[in-house]
Amino acid sequence: MKSVLAVCLNPALDREFVIDNFKIDKLNVVPNEKNKMTPGGKGVNVAVILSKYNIPSIVTGFIGGYVGNVLLSELRKIDSLISTSFVHISDETRENIAIADTVNHTLTEINSEGPVVDLHSIEAFLKRYEVLVQQVKTVVISGSIPRGVPNSIYGELTKIAKRYNKTVFWEARDEIILESMKIAFPDVLKYDLRRSEKILGNILNTEKEYVEATKEFIKKGARLVILSYKTVFDFVGTVDGVWKFSPKVNIDHSYLLGAGDTFVASMIMAQLEGKCCVDMARYGYAAAVAKTSYMGKEPPSRQQIEEYLSLVSSERVE
Amino acid sequence: MKSVLAVCLNPALDREFVIDNFKIDKLNVVPNEKNKMTPGGKGVNVAVILSKYNIPSIVTGFIGGYVGNVLLSELRKIDSLISTSFVHISDETRENIAIADTVNHTLTEINSEGPVVDLHSIEAFLKRYEVLVQQVKTVVISGSIPRGVPNSIYGELTKIAKRYNKTVFWEARDEIILESMKIAFPDVLKYDLRRSEKILGNILNTEKEYVEATKEFIKKGARLVILSYKTVFDFVGTVDGVWKFSPKVNIDHSYLLGAGDTFVASMIMAQLEGKCCVDMARYGYAAAVAKTSYMGKEPPSRQQIEEYLSLVSSERVE
Repeated sequence: MKSVLAVCLNPALDREFVIDNFKIDKLNVVPNEKNKMTPGGKGVNVAVILSKYNIPSIVTGFIGGYVGNVLLSELRKIDSLISTSFVHISDETRENIAIADTVNHTLTEINSEGPVVDLHSIEAFLKRYEVLVQQVKTVVISGSIPRGVPNSIYGELTKIAKRYNKTVFWEARDEIILESMKIAFPDVLKYDLRRSEKILGNILNTEKEYVEATKEFIKKGARLVILSYKTVFDFVGTVDGVWKFSPKVNIDHSYLLGAGDTFVASMIMAQLEGKCCVDMARYGYAAAVAKTSYMGKEPPSRQQIEEYLSLVSSERVE
Repeated sequence: MKSVLAVCLNPALDREFVIDNFKIDKLNVVPNEKNKMTPGGKGVNVAVILSKYNIPSIVTGFIGGYVGNVLLSELRKIDSLISTSFVHISDETRENIAIADTVNHTLTEINSEGPVVDLHSIEAFLKRYEVLVQQVKTVVISGSIPRGVPNSIYGELTKIAKRYNKTVFWEARDEIILESMKIAFPDVLKYDLRRSEKILGNILNTEKEYVEATKEFIKKGARLVILSYKTVFDFVGTVDGVWKFSPKVNIDHSYLLGAGDTFVASMIMAQLEGKCCVDMARYGYAAAVAKTSYMGKEPPSRQQIEEYLSLVSSERVE
């Protein structure tokens, strides 16, 4: 039995070109060694991190076109612990080009709009998903939703997973959580607040408001809630109370990329090893903080995470 | 028997994104309907134009990687009259991204460096080429050369073609012509002067210098030479003399894209239909001028070319 089903509804091929002195209205050349591509999308990222921790996973979602084929080939190259079972669609998968200029310190992004998924493909996906979900212990659903797919899909998928008694993790934005929680709640709910600060439709400001929101989710049915606060803190809630997590070290904000996915993947690892609730969250948080201590895409090692457990504090606030 | 072997040593996938208000250091989104890709490289372009005139061709050269696969699929979609017989290499084929901003009227180009071809692949190509060349009447070699392949390759390929009595067309830049003409001369030599104005190592200025250069190539062994002069004129030479071709209509310089490839493809069409020498060149020139009379990638129709034959003048200058 595979351990994890990683649902990545809207995967992306992330391309990076390093072009020094990148200029508009000119011919710019990308040297071959500065032209990179990596499979992306939050669900895919979680599966890749899990593979570094030796945890096998199946990745599913929608994939299509030339970009989708490249993404699949590259994903399969990363680790044989990752298997893929995507529904193929006719539109092209997202292609995100980032042009890094190390002289002028700019990052110019060119993203494709992404695919539109039709109802027929959604039906095919739901059938496929129900088969896959029975083959795993844990389901993680993470990241954006392509056009054509309703925001309630996280809820629908969770309802199916719960029919088979699976543990379900979400990391998503407010509009997805708002619609999906009308249908079902995950075991672990983590907000993706990178692009929007909204929680339950409101922009929260004070710590008190975060604590109240945390309690609200627990009341509604989540078992563990994680709301990031001012980027480097987290409010964590269970039926037993609310905690505020803080780092005891300085966080370099330029190394934050990938910290959220590391958080989720490490919680899954902790859960598969028997940790629960606040301990599981603390493990994920320590991994995320460890991730910000260096540049590069690799997740922290097990040993680094263990070290960082003593470099984070969890203060009970309610 | 296929009519034409089109040699495109360094094909490219041409991608066009229309992004209005394209900005550095920002996230830019390309709408799906403004995200286009077309197979490119001058040899490929000639084959595509020939297919519009119902002339079958085989395209050969080096192709590789994900970009190469996309190029091949897209090329095969264009017309079943085009067959492909590329040598596959491990490096990625060129990907040329053009970002058109119709608000600020800029064209930002991002080109990959292109592949490096190893000796083993060059050998494989030469063997393949010798088989293919026997299947056609005419060989056209056009465009740039990837790294690793010597500039003399046009000459080597022509020497092989001449062993089987094929008609050979070149369109290339000076550095290729200089090295290749040491080995063999084509029947039709057309200079690609878009990026460099050099002819036989010198920058020519006066009409007299162009006439002398034209005569020099004929003396050295070419049967027909075409040197474009101030973009819209051409000096054309044969053993019988030198002509200056001029348009009788105004040329819109913004529609020049593709005129050179149209020129070559139309000369090939004329040659296959029995035209020779200056008449063949005049036919190609009329097609190129017709091509500049409208926007768009489609080549002019046969009827348009016939009409433009009366809109160009060919004045004997020597």
